[in-house]
Amino acid sequence: MMFDIADLHDDALAARLQHRIDRKTKPLGALGRIESLALQIGLILGTEAPRLQSPQLVVFAADHGISAQGVSAYPQEVTVQMVANMLAGGAAVSVFTRQHGLALTVVDCGVAADIAAQPGLVIAKAAKGTADCTLGRAMTRQQCELAIDHGAALVTQLPGNVLLLGEMGIANTSSAAMLMSRLTGLPIEQCAGRGTGLDDAGLSRKVETLSRALRLHEQAREPLDVLAALGGLEIATMVGAVIQAAHERRVIVVDGFITTSAVAVAAALSPAVLERCVFSHCSAESGHAAWLSKLGVRALLDLGLRLGEGSGAALAWPLLKSAELMLQEMASFDSAGVSEKNA
Amino acid sequence: MMFDIADLHDDALAARLQHRIDRKTKPLGALGRIESLALQIGLILGTEAPRLQSPQLVVFAADHGISAQGVSAYPQEVTVQMVANMLAGGAAVSVFTRQHGLALTVVDCGVAADIAAQPGLVIAKAAKGTADCTLGRAMTRQQCELAIDHGAALVTQLPGNVLLLGEMGIANTSSAAMLMSRLTGLPIEQCAGRGTGLDDAGLSRKVETLSRALRLHEQAREPLDVLAALGGLEIATMVGAVIQAAHERRVIVVDGFITTSAVAVAAALSPAVLERCVFSHCSAESGHAAWLSKLGVRALLDLGLRLGEGSGAALAWPLLKSAELMLQEMASFDSAGVSEKNA
Repeated sequence: MMFDIADLHDDALAARLQHRIDRKTKPLGALGRIESLALQIGLILGTEAPRLQSPQLVVFAADHGISAQGVSAYPQEVTVQMVANMLAGGAAVSVFTRQHGLALTVVDCGVAADIAAQPGLVIAKAAKGTADCTLGRAMTRQQCELAIDHGAALVTQLPGNVLLLGEMGIANTSSAAMLMSRLTGLPIEQCAGRGTGLDDAGLSRKVETLSRALRLHEQAREPLDVLAALGGLEIATMVGAVIQAAHERRVIVVDGFITTSAVAVAAALSPAVLERCVFSHCSAESGHAAWLSKLGVRALLDLGLRLGEGSGAALAWPLLKSAELMLQEMASFDSAGVSEKNA
Repeated sequence: MMFDIADLHDDALAARLQHRIDRKTKPLGALGRIESLALQIGLILGTEAPRLQSPQLVVFAADHGISAQGVSAYPQEVTVQMVANMLAGGAAVSVFTRQHGLALTVVDCGVAADIAAQPGLVIAKAAKGTADCTLGRAMTRQQCELAIDHGAALVTQLPGNVLLLGEMGIANTSSAAMLMSRLTGLPIEQCAGRGTGLDDAGLSRKVETLSRALRLHEQAREPLDVLAALGGLEIATMVGAVIQAAHERRVIVVDGFITTSAVAVAAALSPAVLERCVFSHCSAESGHAAWLSKLGVRALLDLGLRLGEGSGAALAWPLLKSAELMLQEMASFDSAGVSEKNA
């Protein structure tokens, strides 16, 4: 697939959008981040009258060989159980997508067990879980590229112009932390966190395990090599989805630590991806704030979330809609006959 | 009216709510502020199965005599123009309440001009604007008590169990800043901000003017004396509304700097009011963060908003709804058959 994505620079459009925002009946800048969000959405969609259409929340699910090393507080079987819970409507992301009328799709990118075909599930397994990356590469280069292709193909089939990212995969904070360390150069201690709830001893073991894997894959430096070496399949599939969505100028809503890892790999391949991304929240997973800072982006929410699934992306969705509606429906000083600022 | 409000301590209910939250299919605490919000809503409504019903956003509007001193970037006529804009559906709060299905009511608590009766407007004028508090008291004690009574009576008429606070009144950041300074003991320089957009010279003039008013009313120390001395009518009406809503155990959603001033006066009269309040956002108005900190509360959002109207309360509303739906609709480990944490 093509990794070169054009940047969104369009000074004339940006000026028209800003003028439209500034003429709304409010003091200049008084809607803060809602205004910058409106500007960004307009630039992504290439119009001063953007409409967010048929938003799609996609949960990318896979298993991780490294979970055998005891890096997660939960057993691997929880991945497939939570996929079932999402499809049955009982997971947090099910509740919040239902609340906001977001379409929810779960993609089996590489869950170890087989999941029966059912509505809301897309089966796009590039492997039955990754290999344990403390012993070898998590994926072969072919598996990694297949997963990326799956993600890209999936997005071409989605309606609308908004992709909200979610994920599920026991041990995937381990993959994300290793990707963070390798891509940013920060030591693994600053990247690895407690995930689903490790205690101090568990966190020490996780850091030691991830250090070992990073040393084993010391030579992996190019983004796709790093991704294949350290995993995971859901992250690779998301990388493809993000690049395809960026190509198509969809608005991409990023969730927490894991989805940020996919966006970071995609941005390492093509930096203009970031302009299409709305970072929904800063996770309580300890490395996330530093990673957002390294990427030069600011999240909308800071609610101490650390669940993943796309739950934070879904919670932030109404703010994007508010930005759109502000542009569409708010009166201007002229249309409402409101007096302007004193000279 | 009665100012003594019982606190919500109910250890048994709190334990039942926390247990219910902890059994949901997510790591302990992984939904962060959504979980604490669910607990708070359950305690306010007195049940482990809370339902937020018929949420009412009320915009309290009034004019301020002190606007004659040039403390605002906008002329006083904007108050009544913005009331018209809200009722016509073109203001930010109109757009966001429509987005979220919140009922919107505007209350004329003391706008200088007469506003024609119309749907969505409640006329409860305690005076035609406050007097200029640099020259004397903003309100007589009688006007202040009348405004408080109006606010309380209004709430008794509202359906549902949620009150979202909004306000409109050119120069009302001046009243709020003076109330903050007097109630917290912080110097006025740390309380007064740029409001709708004062430049440096305007801000200096505002600080000087407010200092003068505070000196004139040096003797006013008791909360209702402070309120009557420094205004405004919309703030006094909100004080009554907040106390009545707290009595009735409604969930109170606070907006920005001005609505916080009303809650702070109400809490000075009856501290248990604060337990019923959800602080929707931390405003970009410079004193707000310090005031929230003095009150010992944390806001949900931090989006650089400084518009008022209740716009921030409306933007935060979906998070309250998410907290409710998390309790209602999320599966538990037992109901979903999901494995629990490793021993």
